[in-house]
Amino acid sequence: MRVKVGVNGYGTIGKRVAYAVSKQDDMELVGITKTKPDFEAYLAKERAIPVYAAGEEFLPTFENAGFEVAGTLNDLLEKVDVIVDATPEGMGAKNKALYEKAGVKAIFQGGEKASVAEVSFVAQANYEKALGKDYVRVVSCNTTGLTRTLSALQEYIDYVYAVMIRRAADPNDSKRGPVDAITPSVTVPSHHGPDVQTVIPINIETSAFVVPTTLMHVHSIMVELKKPLTEKDVIDIFENTTRVLLFEKEKGFESTAQIIEFARDLHREWNNLYEIAVWRESVSVKGKRLFYIQAVHQESDVVPENVDAIRAMFELAEKWESIRKTNRSLGILK
Amino acid sequence: MRVKVGVNGYGTIGKRVAYAVSKQDDMELVGITKTKPDFEAYLAKERAIPVYAAGEEFLPTFENAGFEVAGTLNDLLEKVDVIVDATPEGMGAKNKALYEKAGVKAIFQGGEKASVAEVSFVAQANYEKALGKDYVRVVSCNTTGLTRTLSALQEYIDYVYAVMIRRAADPNDSKRGPVDAITPSVTVPSHHGPDVQTVIPINIETSAFVVPTTLMHVHSIMVELKKPLTEKDVIDIFENTTRVLLFEKEKGFESTAQIIEFARDLHREWNNLYEIAVWRESVSVKGKRLFYIQAVHQESDVVPENVDAIRAMFELAEKWESIRKTNRSLGILK
Amino acid sequence: MRVKVGVNGYGTIGKRVAYAVSKQDDMELVGITKTKPDFEAYLAKERAIPVYAAGEEFLPTFENAGFEVAGTLNDLLEKVDVIVDATPEGMGAKNKALYEKAGVKAIFQGGEKASVAEVSFVAQANYEKALGKDYVRVVSCNTTGLTRTLSALQEYIDYVYAVMIRRAADPNDSKRGPVDAITPSVTVPSHHGPDVQTVIPINIETSAFVVPTTLMHVHSIMVELKKPLTEKDVIDIFENTTRVLLFEKEKGFESTAQIIEFARDLHREWNNLYEIAVWRESVSVKGKRLFYIQAVHQESDVVPENVDAIRAMFELAEKWESIRKTNRSLGILK
Amino acid sequence: MRVKVGVNGYGTIGKRVAYAVSKQDDMELVGITKTKPDFEAYLAKERAIPVYAAGEEFLPTFENAGFEVAGTLNDLLEKVDVIVDATPEGMGAKNKALYEKAGVKAIFQGGEKASVAEVSFVAQANYEKALGKDYVRVVSCNTTGLTRTLSALQEYIDYVYAVMIRRAADPNDSKRGPVDAITPSVTVPSHHGPDVQTVIPINIETSAFVVPTTLMHVHSIMVELKKPLTEKDVIDIFENTTRVLLFEKEKGFESTAQIIEFARDLHREWNNLYEIAVWRESVSVKGKRLFYIQAVHQESDVVPENVDAIRAMFELAEKWESIRKTNRSLGILK
Ligand SMILES: NC(=O)c1ccc[n+]([C@@H]2O[C@H](COP(=O)([O-])OP(=O)(O)OC[C@H]3O[C@@H](n4cnc5c(N)ncnc54)[C@H](O)[C@@H]3O)[C@@H](O)[C@H]2O)c1
Ligand SMILES: NC(=O)c1ccc[n+]([C@@H]2O[C@H](COP(=O)([O-])OP(=O)(O)OC[C@H]3O[C@@H](n4cnc5c(N)ncnc54)[C@H](O)[C@@H]3O)[C@@H](O)[C@H]2O)c1
Ligand SMILES: NC(=O)c1ccc[n+]([C@@H]2O[C@H](COP(=O)([O-])OP(=O)(O)OC[C@H]3O[C@@H](n4cnc5c(N)ncnc54)[C@H](O)[C@@H]3O)[C@@H](O)[C@H]2O)c1
Ligand SMILES: NC(=O)c1ccc[n+]([C@@H]2O[C@H](COP(=O)([O-])OP(=O)(O)OC[C@H]3O[C@@H](n4cnc5c(N)ncnc54)[C@H](O)[C@@H]3O)[C@@H](O)[C@H]2O)c1
Repeated sequence: MRVKVGVNGYGTIGKRVAYAVSKQDDMELVGITKTKPDFEAYLAKERAIPVYAAGEEFLPTFENAGFEVAGTLNDLLEKVDVIVDATPEGMGAKNKALYEKAGVKAIFQGGEKASVAEVSFVAQANYEKALGKDYVRVVSCNTTGLTRTLSALQEYIDYVYAVMIRRAADPNDSKRGPVDAITPSVTVPSHHGPDVQTVIPINIETSAFVVPTTLMHVHSIMVELKKPLTEKDVIDIFENTTRVLLFEKEKGFESTAQIIEFARDLHREWNNLYEIAVWRESVSVKGKRLFYIQAVHQESDVVPENVDAIRAMFELAEKWESIRKTNRSLGILK
Repeated sequence: MRVKVGVNGYGTIGKRVAYAVSKQDDMELVGITKTKPDFEAYLAKERAIPVYAAGEEFLPTFENAGFEVAGTLNDLLEKVDVIVDATPEGMGAKNKALYEKAGVKAIFQGGEKASVAEVSFVAQANYEKALGKDYVRVVSCNTTGLTRTLSALQEYIDYVYAVMIRRAADPNDSKRGPVDAITPSVTVPSHHGPDVQTVIPINIETSAFVVPTTLMHVHSIMVELKKPLTEKDVIDIFENTTRVLLFEKEKGFESTAQIIEFARDLHREWNNLYEIAVWRESVSVKGKRLFYIQAVHQESDVVPENVDAIRAMFELAEKWESIRKTNRSLGILK
Repeated sequence: MRVKVGVNGYGTIGKRVAYAVSKQDDMELVGITKTKPDFEAYLAKERAIPVYAAGEEFLPTFENAGFEVAGTLNDLLEKVDVIVDATPEGMGAKNKALYEKAGVKAIFQGGEKASVAEVSFVAQANYEKALGKDYVRVVSCNTTGLTRTLSALQEYIDYVYAVMIRRAADPNDSKRGPVDAITPSVTVPSHHGPDVQTVIPINIETSAFVVPTTLMHVHSIMVELKKPLTEKDVIDIFENTTRVLLFEKEKGFESTAQIIEFARDLHREWNNLYEIAVWRESVSVKGKRLFYIQAVHQESDVVPENVDAIRAMFELAEKWESIRKTNRSLGILK
Repeated sequence: MRVKVGVNGYGTIGKRVAYAVSKQDDMELVGITKTKPDFEAYLAKERAIPVYAAGEEFLPTFENAGFEVAGTLNDLLEKVDVIVDATPEGMGAKNKALYEKAGVKAIFQGGEKASVAEVSFVAQANYEKALGKDYVRVVSCNTTGLTRTLSALQEYIDYVYAVMIRRAADPNDSKRGPVDAITPSVTVPSHHGPDVQTVIPINIETSAFVVPTTLMHVHSIMVELKKPLTEKDVIDIFENTTRVLLFEKEKGFESTAQIIEFARDLHREWNNLYEIAVWRESVSVKGKRLFYIQAVHQESDVVPENVDAIRAMFELAEKWESIRKTNRSLGILK
C-alpha cells in the first residue's frame, strides 16, 4: 500500500514536505494546493505535480493567468488518505473541519495550537504516540530542535533554560524585518517551553528574541542536571542521536553562515539541514550545569518529522524503521 | 581644583568621554589624541579642543594634510592629571608604561584585562574602591550593564545565567559584519561572567552571540534567587536604581529600535542612552527564578562611569554626590 | 503675527516638523495629533505640547490608558491657521476635506499625489510659487534631494538619469524588511522622475531599489550637460548651494554610516541631516556627462521645507529671508 | 583526450569550478589546493578529490590536524594540463610565475588585472579569442553579467551607463560588513566599465555601491541606442541569449530573494544561478534610451565561463558546441 498524500499550503514547509513525500516508496504525492499562479506553481506543474486551487475563491486568479488547475482543495481531499496542512499559522485549525468532512487524516504544523491534534509529534521522542492517529501536529522548528537534543538527555534533566535567537524572516521573504534591531518576546518565559512539554515531560523555561538574519535559529541551552554527566558523555550521546550533528568551530564553523554553507556543499536540495547542528566546543559542564549551543534550520528540520508522522498514522512501519527510511531517502547523515 | 583630563583614543568611547568631561565643573578637558586628520579631528578642532598626535609616528599624516596638531601624546601627558585611555582593545596595557613614566593617573576601558588597573569599576557598585587610586579600569559596556542591575539585586542572588545578544558593529563602523548570520562564542561559559566578578562577587555564568545589528546589546537574564522576591519588588528595586530605566512594550518599545528612538526623541547627544533599559513586562518570577531582559547602549553606558572614576581617583566627591553630579550634567533621567 | 500651526500625524516627519516649528519666532506650535498613547505621546506631553486625538475613534484608547488629550483633530483645527499633515502615505488626500471644512490652510507631504495641493514645493527651487497659497505639498525626501542639487545645475541640464538606492525602513521601524535582499522597482523609469518635474522643468528619468539599511537613501546621478562645466565648477556651485554639503571620503566619509555619525557628532537632534550630502570625490565630468553621488537623510531633509512652506503660504518673508531664518534656527550649516 | 585540470584556491569560485569540471566528459579533475584543513577540505576528501597543500608553508597546519594531503601545489602542477587559479584577488598574478615554470596553462579570475592573461573572456562574447591560448582571465561576476546582456545588444549600443548595487559579502562570509550602511565607490566612473571593454568594445561608464546583502548583485542599466529597438525586440533578444533568463515580478520575483529561491527550487547545487536574471517588466524603451534591471549570482555566473575557457584553450570544441555542452552538464536552462 502506498499512502496517498496531499499538501495544502505549498510554501516554505509545504514544498519541502511534498518533495520528501515524493522520495518515499510507501507514499504517493497526489497533489498540492496553491492560492495563486506564482513561480512555485509553475515549477510544480513542470514537475508533473498536480496543482489544485486552495479554494473556489482562488480559481479566478488562476483562470486570469491561463493556469489550468487540477481542481480545488475539495477535489484533492477526495483523492488522498492524508492531507499535510502547511498553511500559514492558525489557518490549519480553521481547515480542520474540511478535513473531517472529507474523512481524511491530517497533519498540522507548529503554527497551530497543540489542541488541533491528538498528538504533538517529534519522531525520535514519541513516534509511538502517533500510531494509528487521525490528527497529528508536527511541532515547530524551534520545538523540534529543542526536543531532538533534550529528549536524548532526558533522564539527566532536572531543569532546562533555553534562550532562542530567532531568524527574522525566511530567505525567500523580502517583506519582513527588522533591518537593524533586536526584538525580544517580552513575555518571559516564552511559549516555547510549554510547547516542548507537549512532546516530552521536562521542566523547561525559555526566552526568545528576533534578530535580522534569515538563515537559522540559534539556541543557547542550559541544563540543570539531576545526575552527573561529563562533556564527553554529552558528545557521545549527541553522536548517537539521530538528526543531531556536531560541528566544530575549529573546522571553520564560526557562525550559522558556515553551517548553511556545509549544507550547500553537500548539494542538499534548498540547502536543507534536516539535522540539528550542535557546536562541539560549546558543550560544557560546570558543576551541576550543562551548557550547549545549537542551530536549527527552520525551513527544513520538521520535514522528516512530517514523513515519519505519516508512517505512524498509517502504521506503515515501527519507529526506527521509519526514521531510518526517512533518513536514507533524504540523505540525512545519521 | 579642576582635574586636568586628557583623552587618548578619540573614537566611539573617547569622544563621548571627552564631551562628558567638558560638562563637569570640577574637570577640564585639556586635549585629545588622534592618529589621523579625519572629520572627527576637524570637528574637535572647530570646538576648540586641542588635538594631539597619538604618537610621533602619526605626525607626517597630519602634516601632509596641513592639519596643525598641538603636539604629541607625550606633550599632552605633561599637561594632565589623568589620562583616559580609550584606544582599541588591548592597546591600553601597552600604553600604561607611558602613563607611569609621565606620572599621570590613568583610566582604562573594558577592552583591557582587569590586571591593567588596581580596580575594575562601576560607580554604583564599588565607587569607594577607586578612591585615591592611580589606575582604574571602567569595565566593558556589557559588564557595566550586567553590574548595574545585578548589583541592585545582589543580596537576593544565588546564581545568574545571562545570555548576551551582541551588536555586530557600532553604527559608524561600516566594515565589520556579519551581514546575515549569528556568531556564537563557542566557549561557554563566556568570559563575561568572570568580568562581572571583577566588580561584584556574585555567582554568574554567561554565553554570548553576535548578530547583525548596530544599535544595542540585549541581555536575557535568569537569576536563581536565594530569598523570595516578587515581580513588584524587582520593579521597585529597578525604579530606585540609578542608571536603570524601565521601558514598556505596551508604550511602543517593541525592540531596540524604539529604545534608541526614545534617546533620539530626548535629543540626547549621539542618541546616548547612558541608562540600562529593562523591559518592564519581561520582569518575571517563576518559583525561585527571576527573569528579565535588558538592553545596553554599548556606545554610551560606560561614559558616566569614566566621569565618576575620575572623581573617585582624585577624591573630589563621595559616591552619591559624584553620581548625582554626573547624572545631572548628562541629563541622565535618574 | 505668529502663525498658529498644528501637526496631524506625529511620526517620523511630524515630530521633526513640530520641533522645527517650535524653533521659529514667527510661528507657534498649537498642538499635535496622536492615534495612541505611546511613548511619543507621553514625551510630547512632558514637553507641554498639547496632544489631540487624531479622531473621535481614537479617544477610547487614550481613555483606557488614562492619557488625557486636549481634544480631537477637529478641536485642533479650530485653533490653527495651518495644519501640517504628516499622516501615512495617501491619508492626507482623505484628510483634505476636513481641512477645507475647517477653513485652515494645509501642507501635505511627499506620500501624497501632486494633485492634492496647488503647488509641489522645494524652497530653494520654487518658494515664490507657494506665496499666499492654501495647499502646498512638500515633496518626498528623494524628490527634495534630487531637486536641491539639480536645481542648482538647472541651466546646464539636458537630461538626468538618477538611480536611487533606498533605505528599507526608518531607524525606528522594526517591522519592515527585507533582511537580506535587494528589491527593484521594476517599472522603469520609476515615478520619481515625474515627481521632480512637479517642482522643476527638467528632463529626468530614474530607477529605484530598496536595500536593507535604515540610515539614508543614496542617489547615483548622471547629467547630460547642455553646456560645458568642469568638476571645479560643479563643486563651486554646490558649495554655494544652500542645504547641500560636500563630504570627503578622504576624511573618513566612506559610507552613509559616517555621514550620519557626522550629524551625531554635531549633536543634531535625532541626528538630523537637513542638508543633502554630496561626496566631493564623486563629482566627475567625462565629456558631456557629469556624475555625482549624494546621500539623503530621509527622516529630516524635508523638515526645513515645511517651515519655509508655512512662511510662503502666509507671506511672512521673501524666499532668502525665510531660508536663512530656517537654516539659522535649525543649525543648518549653509 | 581528457584535459587534466587542477584548481588552486578552493573557495567560493574554486569549489564550484572543480564541481563543474568534474561534470565534463572531456575533462578530469586532478586535484585542488587548500591552505588549511577546514570542512571544505574534509568534504573534498570524502568525495575522493585529491587535496594538495597550497604551498609548503601550509603543510604543518595539515599535519597538526592529522589531515593527509596528496602533496603540495608544485606536485599538483606536475600532474595537470591547466590550472584554474581561484585564489584571493591579486594573488593569481603572483602565482603566474609558478605556472609558467611548471609549463601548465592557467586560467585566472576577475580579481586579477587584465594584463595577467592574453585574453579576458566571456564565452558567448569572445570564445574564439581564447582558442589555443595559454593564459586566459575569466572576468569578474559583474563584468560577466554586463557582458552577457550587452554583447547581445551590441550592435544597437551607442553608450551604456550601468549602476551596480553590490552584495557586501558572500553568504559564507560572516566577517565582512556593513551591517547597516551603503558604501559608494566614490571614484566615478568606476573601474567596471573599462573591465567590460577588455571583452567587448562598447562605450560604457559605471558607478558602484555596496549594500548589506549577501545574495546577488543588481545592475540598473541604461543604454543609449544607436538604432531603434522596441521593448519586444529586447525581450526577444534576451530570450534567445544563452545564460540570460527573464523573470517576472508578476510571478512573484519581487527581489533577489525570490530569484535565489527559484534556484533553490530547481535544486541547483549551492543554489547556483549560472544565468543572468533580467526582470522582464523592467525592460523599457523611452525614445532613444533602453532601460533594464538585472541580477547576478556572484558566486556562480563565472563558473560555466571557466569550463568553456578550458575547452577553448585546448581547442576541444568550437564555441557553440562548448557552450551547449557546458550548459547541458550544469543544467543551465538555455
Ligand atoms: N518557515 C518556518 O520556519 C517554519 C518552520 C516550522 C513550522 N512552520 C509552520 O509551518 C506552517 C507553514 O509555514 P510556512 O513557513 O511554510 O509558511 P509560508 O508562508 O511559507 O507558506 C504558507 C503557504 O500557504 C499558502 N496559503 C495561504 N493561504 C492559504 C489557504 N487559504 N489555503 C491554502 N494555502 C494557503 C501560502 O500561499 C503559502 O504558499 C505554519 O504553521 C508555520 O508556523 C514554519
Ligand atoms: N564601542 C563599544 O561598544 C565599547 C563599549 C565599551 C567599552 N569599549 C572599549 O573602549 C575601548 C575603545 O573602544 P572604541 O569602541 O571606542 O574603539 P574605537 O575604534 O571606536 O576608537 C578607538 C580610537 O583609538 C584610536 N587609536 C588607534 N590606535 C591608536 C593609538 N596608537 N593611540 C591612540 N589612539 C589610537 C582610533 O583611531 C580610534 O579613534 C576598547 O577598550 C573597547 O573595548 C568599547
Ligand atoms: N519617513 C520618510 O522617510 C519620509 C520622508 C519624506 C516624506 N515622508 C512622507 O511623510 C508622510 C508621513 O510619513 P512618516 O514617515 O512620517 O510616517 P510615520 O508612519 O512615521 O508617521 C505617520 C504618523 O501618522 C500617524 N497616523 C496614522 N493614522 C493616522 C490618522 N488617521 N490621523 C492622524 N495620524 C495618523 C501614525 O500613528 C504616525 O505617528 C508620508 O506622506 C510620507 O510619504 C516620509
Ligand atoms: N566571490 C565572488 O563573488 C567572485 C565572483 C567572481 C570572481 N571572483 C574572483 O575569484 C577569485 C577568488 O575569489 P573567491 O570569492 O572564490 O575567494 P574565496 O576567498 O572564497 O576563495 C579563495 C580561496 O583561496 C584560498 N587561498 C588563500 N590563499 C591561498 C594561497 N596562497 N594559495 C592557494 N589558495 C589560497 C582561500 O583559503 C580560499 O579558499 C578572486 O579573483 C575573485 O575576485 C569572485
